[in-house]
Amino acid sequence: MSTRRLDPTSLAIGVGVGAVVAFAVSRMTAKATLVNPGINKGSPKVVDMKTLAEIEDLINKSEKGNVVLCRCWRSSNFPFCDGSHAKYNKECCDNTGPLVIKKA
Amino acid sequence: MSTRRLDPTSLAIGVGVGAVVAFAVSRMTAKATLVNPGINKGSPKVVDMKTLAEIEDLINKSEKGNVVLCRCWRSSNFPFCDGSHAKYNKECCDNTGPLVIKKA
Ligand code: FES
Ligand code: FES
Repeated sequence: MSTRRLDPTSLAIGVGVGAVVAFAVSRMTAKATLVNPGINKGSPKVVDMKTLAEIEDLINKSEKGNVVLCRCWRSSNFPFCDGSHAKYNKECCDNTGPLVIKKA
Repeated sequence: MSTRRLDPTSLAIGVGVGAVVAFAVSRMTAKATLVNPGINKGSPKVVDMKTLAEIEDLINKSEKGNVVLCRCWRSSNFPFCDGSHAKYNKECCDNTGPLVIKKA
């Protein structure tokens, strides 16, 4: 062990500089902030309602015979999936995906 | 300005201590990390599939005549909602909620 005494001023400046830099880096590299960063933020709780008949109608009108429901909260066509989960998953190292209801 | 020179050792120790403390505080106080922090993390994309008949059957068997699909990724009964969105919303200042499919 060194017997040299640490300089309090240098130490204090170092702590300050280190703290500011690390805090900024931590916040900038934080992967995500909220499950829902942008949809209907004026509402206390975003609930979507569909009837079984509406779902059936959407399925019948769809090319693939299904309806795809967004669970990543990044779709431009919310509450339906528009594929945006792929971009979010890649950026945030996450694995979200939709719920699919198919004809049969 | 002081003409006293800073001590590099003290400065370096200070930067290190400050950085570690600030990084830890930043990460501990971060509100949320991922849309999906825990469900099926071994999978690259969590997609759930249901047929229209399955949804109809679940609705018919339910007390309230509906099926409630989780979009907060905190349900113990995923892909169905168990009300956990309320706790998550409160803790993280978010406004997630389920998609509800009802009989009529
Ligand atoms: S866009 Fe959100 S799950 Fe596909
Ligand atoms: S528990 Fe996830 S939306 Fe209700």
